[in-house]
Amino acid sequence: MPRLANGSIGVGLLGAGVVGGEVARAILRPSSRQVYHAGLSLRRVVVRNVAIKRDGIPKELITYNIEEVLGDRDATIVIEVMGGEEPARSYIESALSAGKHVVTANKEVMAKHGDQLVRVAQENGVELSYEASVGGGIPMLAVLKDSLGGNRIDTIRAIINGTTNYILTSMDDTGASFNESLAEAQCLGFAESDPTADVGGYDAVYKLAILARLAWGGSLDPDAIHREGIEGVESKDLRYARELGFRVKLLAIAREDDHGLRCRVHPALVPADVPMASVSGVFNAVEFNGDRVGPLWLQGRGAGSGPTASAVLGDVLRISRGVKSERQLRKVNPVSQVAEKSKNALTMDELEVRYYVRLSALDRPGVLAKIATVFGETRISIASVIQKDLDGSRGIADLVVMTHPARECDMQTAASKLRDLDVVSSLDNLIRVEDYERLPGS
Amino acid sequence: MPRLANGSIGVGLLGAGVVGGEVARAILRPSSRQVYHAGLSLRRVVVRNVAIKRDGIPKELITYNIEEVLGDRDATIVIEVMGGEEPARSYIESALSAGKHVVTANKEVMAKHGDQLVRVAQENGVELSYEASVGGGIPMLAVLKDSLGGNRIDTIRAIINGTTNYILTSMDDTGASFNESLAEAQCLGFAESDPTADVGGYDAVYKLAILARLAWGGSLDPDAIHREGIEGVESKDLRYARELGFRVKLLAIAREDDHGLRCRVHPALVPADVPMASVSGVFNAVEFNGDRVGPLWLQGRGAGSGPTASAVLGDVLRISRGVKSERQLRKVNPVSQVAEKSKNALTMDELEVRYYVRLSALDRPGVLAKIATVFGETRISIASVIQKDLDGSRGIADLVVMTHPARECDMQTAASKLRDLDVVSSLDNLIRVEDYERLPGS
Repeated sequence: MPRLANGSIGVGLLGAGVVGGEVARAILRPSSRQVYHAGLSLRRVVVRNVAIKRDGIPKELITYNIEEVLGDRDATIVIEVMGGEEPARSYIESALSAGKHVVTANKEVMAKHGDQLVRVAQENGVELSYEASVGGGIPMLAVLKDSLGGNRIDTIRAIINGTTNYILTSMDDTGASFNESLAEAQCLGFAESDPTADVGGYDAVYKLAILARLAWGGSLDPDAIHREGIEGVESKDLRYARELGFRVKLLAIAREDDHGLRCRVHPALVPADVPMASVSGVFNAVEFNGDRVGPLWLQGRGAGSGPTASAVLGDVLRISRGVKSERQLRKVNPVSQVAEKSKNALTMDELEVRYYVRLSALDRPGVLAKIATVFGETRISIASVIQKDLDGSRGIADLVVMTHPARECDMQTAASKLRDLDVVSSLDNLIRVEDYERLPGS
Repeated sequence: MPRLANGSIGVGLLGAGVVGGEVARAILRPSSRQVYHAGLSLRRVVVRNVAIKRDGIPKELITYNIEEVLGDRDATIVIEVMGGEEPARSYIESALSAGKHVVTANKEVMAKHGDQLVRVAQENGVELSYEASVGGGIPMLAVLKDSLGGNRIDTIRAIINGTTNYILTSMDDTGASFNESLAEAQCLGFAESDPTADVGGYDAVYKLAILARLAWGGSLDPDAIHREGIEGVESKDLRYARELGFRVKLLAIAREDDHGLRCRVHPALVPADVPMASVSGVFNAVEFNGDRVGPLWLQGRGAGSGPTASAVLGDVLRISRGVKSERQLRKVNPVSQVAEKSKNALTMDELEVRYYVRLSALDRPGVLAKIATVFGETRISIASVIQKDLDGSRGIADLVVMTHPARECDMQTAASKLRDLDVVSSLDNLIRVEDYERLPGS
């Protein structure tokens, strides 16, 4: 690793928003002994608007010109914290091509272009690290890639979007509607003014794609991941779920079995007594299941400038200690040249889980028989039915059906038949249940 | 890193018990792609008794002679999973001196001789990794040292002894006594026939010493860590704690403030609604608090052959990827030569926490006044008093006093005065409360 005359390692920073500012200050005035010992030297900070004053960053370091970093032979590590797809992606690629190690917090770029960028890094013998792109300050990627390297991973289950978790927690605590809770989250800065990427589950899909690629190799198209957002979750679903002993969470789930790999992001009922159910507010969490380690659980702040800077700095320190890239391993190790085959991507059809089904149905004799018949015809066994919230004036009641494990394709067939029943005024929600094995000694 | 003619990395294994067997099989028949790609080659397995058949390990690899590993130039990495202080310590030191990287799961050796062995590793330019020595399969050390390197750590709180956690969970679930639960744990293999190291808190002290050294540097004598075991915890303490909204856990706590570092291991009351309270059975967990990341929580299996092998293999893979040791960083980086000063080690005297005090007191008028007077004289403010389990025949009742935050030295003075009171027949338990800050967005 090249060092400057004073023995320090030169760093170029792209972006000086809240995360960039925190990273810049950590390098300029190190308060942790590891950052101090690494001897990092901030060379340039590239920003879009040089006129804005940046707290704690000397004016002479600020530039709008990316070439001042790319062309600086002493900038060994480039940190990208600008966000967004472009120009971030091109800057990262240019920096790698210029032989610089890159640390990025950009989940969109890594999910969409990770394969290609990792290849460029390998070709140039440099590191590309992106811990901060998933789970904020929780070192999900390092744990999965390094610490659990001796395991075959079979399942990843995670809450990896703080905005949706905040909204669901708030709806659950206060009984507020989705729109009210979203507005509150926007007020508090926990949701963007255009919340689509978060509430629609796109952000979680990006992050799950990154996790799955690390766990199972191969390439994984985020567009191929089953995705449902939380827009359709009503506060009454949270209430009924609670009465049944569950919480509702937006889960990102990847599971490999003998047939292949299935990745999905959707709201799910989680048993109230498992740790996942207690992840509240903007916190994130992940559970890895490995053949040796069993279940491993990580929980922490999934967003914010501090946690994101923590993850960025962890990557920078790892690189500054001269960690070799995977490319270098591959170079020396013939067995590792084995090309990663993409896993067989399983559709949702064969998924087999329990379902929570909420219907608005006429409140009169014989209705339940008709509904039960539909489930029976589609080979779905009913575990319980409860009637809730009768609207006497319309003669319509909420009916909540919990099924035994059933195949997704059968459930979708049943759903379509239920919608056609004359006694059903609407099928209001269909939420999958995420069950947990009970472990010995737990 | 030297490689064998076939491109693989030679590994010598010391110990072939349950962990050693699992590690050997993982190397001989890799099922995870990382182990496969690392191209490890098992050279020799050193055991005490070569006559015992070792499942899945070819007979020709087995030897009782450590020199067959130490003298093997192609054994680049030595894995020590024999346990115990000697000869493990000498073998580790000899392997490091012979220029071999060492991976060990030995908490006793690392807690007592870690400083010295790390120095030998640095002098010889090799790695000494010991993830498996703390928290089983939970990568506590890698996360603390690497991922959180950009943080100033202020607190570490952990459940790092599975045996005691199993016993406390079992007592809490069934109302069984300490001795009954210990016997059950021994039956199930969760406790040793001589359980002193676990139930006395010694094992947790070793592990806390290792964690604290990584978080704050300097050297830390395990004997200087305040230690209380769980032998004095009665099932009625668990019952009363539960009624007050707490669980009782054996916690290992290290906290740094402006005055210095305080490390302690003792039973503690933990609020029932924080994650620490829900860590049950043989599971382990740790919460790190960093200035940037905030609280970071890890939970998983703290013992057993699978989790321990998982941690050992993670270390082996990290080394096999050519991770540079800290020594190498220090060599090239002048600023990092700064000697680590040991932190000012704080005694328990100035600790300020809430206390749970259980007394056996006479059941007659005026008793509470006398007891309250003792607390008042020692400047300890009482938060609540409840009377429990009156033994009518003896005229004696349990009295549980919860205090507001008080200084440990005052509490000890009060305890001694309470014992001298004629209306108090015994002071039965004194358990500290571990309070948790409530976090915004949580």
